[in-house]
Amino acid sequence: MARSVTILGAGLVGSLLAVLMRKRGYEITVYERRPDMRSSTISAGKSINLAMSARGWKALDLAGLRKDIEDLAIPMYGRYLHQPDGTSASQAYGKNNEAIYSVSRGELNKKLMTIAEEHGAKIHFEQRCTKVDVPTNTVHFQSADNKETIVQADLLFGSDGAFSALRNSYLFIDRAEYVQHYIEHGYKELCIPPDAAGKMMMEKNALHIWPRKNFMLIGLPNTDGTFTCTLFLPFEGDISFEKLKTEADVKQFFHTHFPDAVPLMPTLAEDFFANPTSSLVTVRVAPWHYKDKSALIGDAAHAIVPFYGQGMNAGFEDCTILCSLMDKYGDDWNTILEKYDTARKPNGDAVLDLALMNFIEMRDKVAEPSFLERKKIEKELGKRYPDQFVSVYEMVSFTHTPYATAMKCIEAQDQLLQSIMNEGDFFSNISDNTFCSRLDEWMTRYHNSVQQLDFGKEA
Amino acid sequence: MARSVTILGAGLVGSLLAVLMRKRGYEITVYERRPDMRSSTISAGKSINLAMSARGWKALDLAGLRKDIEDLAIPMYGRYLHQPDGTSASQAYGKNNEAIYSVSRGELNKKLMTIAEEHGAKIHFEQRCTKVDVPTNTVHFQSADNKETIVQADLLFGSDGAFSALRNSYLFIDRAEYVQHYIEHGYKELCIPPDAAGKMMMEKNALHIWPRKNFMLIGLPNTDGTFTCTLFLPFEGDISFEKLKTEADVKQFFHTHFPDAVPLMPTLAEDFFANPTSSLVTVRVAPWHYKDKSALIGDAAHAIVPFYGQGMNAGFEDCTILCSLMDKYGDDWNTILEKYDTARKPNGDAVLDLALMNFIEMRDKVAEPSFLERKKIEKELGKRYPDQFVSVYEMVSFTHTPYATAMKCIEAQDQLLQSIMNEGDFFSNISDNTFCSRLDEWMTRYHNSVQQLDFGKEA
Repeated sequence: MARSVTILGAGLVGSLLAVLMRKRGYEITVYERRPDMRSSTISAGKSINLAMSARGWKALDLAGLRKDIEDLAIPMYGRYLHQPDGTSASQAYGKNNEAIYSVSRGELNKKLMTIAEEHGAKIHFEQRCTKVDVPTNTVHFQSADNKETIVQADLLFGSDGAFSALRNSYLFIDRAEYVQHYIEHGYKELCIPPDAAGKMMMEKNALHIWPRKNFMLIGLPNTDGTFTCTLFLPFEGDISFEKLKTEADVKQFFHTHFPDAVPLMPTLAEDFFANPTSSLVTVRVAPWHYKDKSALIGDAAHAIVPFYGQGMNAGFEDCTILCSLMDKYGDDWNTILEKYDTARKPNGDAVLDLALMNFIEMRDKVAEPSFLERKKIEKELGKRYPDQFVSVYEMVSFTHTPYATAMKCIEAQDQLLQSIMNEGDFFSNISDNTFCSRLDEWMTRYHNSVQQLDFGKEA
Repeated sequence: MARSVTILGAGLVGSLLAVLMRKRGYEITVYERRPDMRSSTISAGKSINLAMSARGWKALDLAGLRKDIEDLAIPMYGRYLHQPDGTSASQAYGKNNEAIYSVSRGELNKKLMTIAEEHGAKIHFEQRCTKVDVPTNTVHFQSADNKETIVQADLLFGSDGAFSALRNSYLFIDRAEYVQHYIEHGYKELCIPPDAAGKMMMEKNALHIWPRKNFMLIGLPNTDGTFTCTLFLPFEGDISFEKLKTEADVKQFFHTHFPDAVPLMPTLAEDFFANPTSSLVTVRVAPWHYKDKSALIGDAAHAIVPFYGQGMNAGFEDCTILCSLMDKYGDDWNTILEKYDTARKPNGDAVLDLALMNFIEMRDKVAEPSFLERKKIEKELGKRYPDQFVSVYEMVSFTHTPYATAMKCIEAQDQLLQSIMNEGDFFSNISDNTFCSRLDEWMTRYHNSVQQLDFGKEA
């Protein structure tokens, strides 16, 4: 007999998981802390726009939802850099015109909830999980009017986000490991509206970045013609949120650092003080499951910073992995959850580290000419040595290579590119036969150093 | 008007804090999860015997309780090492016959509770704190018969131990940092009883250690003639708890590794299977306080492993620091708690690291002749250069030097002792004038490298 499944959180991962498990015949009940965002005017939560990439699309394919979601998505083929000197530069993300896709978190979430319900999942709103007794799978909920409901769960998933109640209960499992860390930067959402005729004010099919070393502004396109902009800035210090106390401070700051953005942001000062300054947490936890009873999934298992655009993609990939384990082990949930934990936890840790590292890349390195050069060389290497070289960025965004494998390739790729760039201009050298044969050698050495890694399926 | 104080946990730190604050006129109410251990036959909790040292005594002096507690304490003047080859060796802890004191956690706790009540503190037992709403200081308790009580606290202290409910609520403060880590070793309590005539079976005034590289057995004397022994062993691996499944396994293991202990442990196998295998957690958290409303103290703020004998001492020193801040700032609890957090948190982190490092010293290094030699040299240096040199062990155990300062002296002392020991036998060299003048130079260099550190009061 198929087990009945209780899901905590009707966010992106919880709603997608509901669809995927309904399709396998499980009875699904979802408990969501917030009111139904489809009928309320509440915000979808503090949200940096999402960038859907290969891992996200794969899970949507599994659920048969690619078409539904494509309508909400705007392809971004590369980074559009707004340099401090007023110039701009573009970097394609892939060598074959690959894109990552800007999606509104709110619209995506609403759509997934509706599809989950259409598939027969039941969603209870305004039910906040207050605690879980892990050994017995007893789940306590509190409604908006403070009524307590106690649910005896059969199979339980905590897709309840970065501040997961299930995960908090896991902390009391003997020998549970946990790290919660906030980076020193906070973020604030701002907006670039279209012009009076409804025309977008910047290049539509790109992710806009104003990299400024220790801070940055980014902008992602929306289907309504606006750009959702996000300022990432330290909370404290010389250049920080705490120093921006008045409208004059904010205007001065933007005029100094983002002069080309100011004319595009007519409501800058109002937005700045109306919108919250939010913090950025990372979370590592072990275990991710308890026997055959419960498991963490998505941000609940691996809350990460948004700088690789992988938060939702990683959560959706958790779902893909779970599905492949259900394919393999049927209803043997002891094995499924054990293998899910073993296979997936190293990749959760890896994407967390990748995301932290990519912040430095986005806010700082991307502005350097040598970085732009390196990105061009990486693409050329990928074309010349398609069986031997895929850049880490491409692995993460355009393949299903385990995150931990991508992580392990970083050092070898850094060495390879360093060797190449030490020789001077790559695109001149490449016409020289001696250089080419040395390049072959370097590439063979690189390939040998990474080929024993697991580039295959996680589970 | 003095505020009324709510204390979570009537353990060692909670009970001592109750005494200290009653003496300053605060109204004190303590809520304790367990039944009253003075009238129940429950154990005092999983407990390695305590080793009271200078920091613990100082806080007891403040409370006027030294005399009360001295009656329960057995001085241990050094380590008594039981080597694998059957030989033994002794190491004095101090250069002036200083001791650390073996105290039964249960007896100490009962005494402190009684004294707290005598001073007018009210203790409610079997009241488990389930959560705290940190901004409002609303505290929820659940009684043994599942009744919920909600208390509106004025000033709240969480002295509720390594699994603190107040600390768990702090995790949801924006930008709260938290690390929970279990070491790979577990522990199990065993017993060495006196002989038929009531005579102790080993040297009474010492801390007994059977150091065996990756694991160890220790024994601390009790006033009833027994020794409380504790086996520290990895949970998993070649030599581990998981490999000791049968009585035969246990006997074989003890005969191989602790042959001299076996005849002293008549109930070894029974005890081994009757007593739990417990885990060892370390916890770092920030912040330690919330505005003028609440603060963490003791293990709740800094759960550490027991290998420096500093867990209770650090918690008692937290109380000393709080008292000195109350002396200085009166009823200004915003300032008191802010300064307590700032002053004490680096020392909580330092004692955590010191305790982890001392495990390697206790189970492994103490067995090496070079370590014994080093300890002798350290004592001699302390006598020859009393104004310049105090060993880290002595700083931690016999002074009130901030833990963070002791931690920072480690590397400089390692360098100093390495220089000395590289020259061959110290106690021969010391009669050589050239060596002595070089020693003066090394000592001056050491002293210069640490003298800018804060050896003074924390707050």
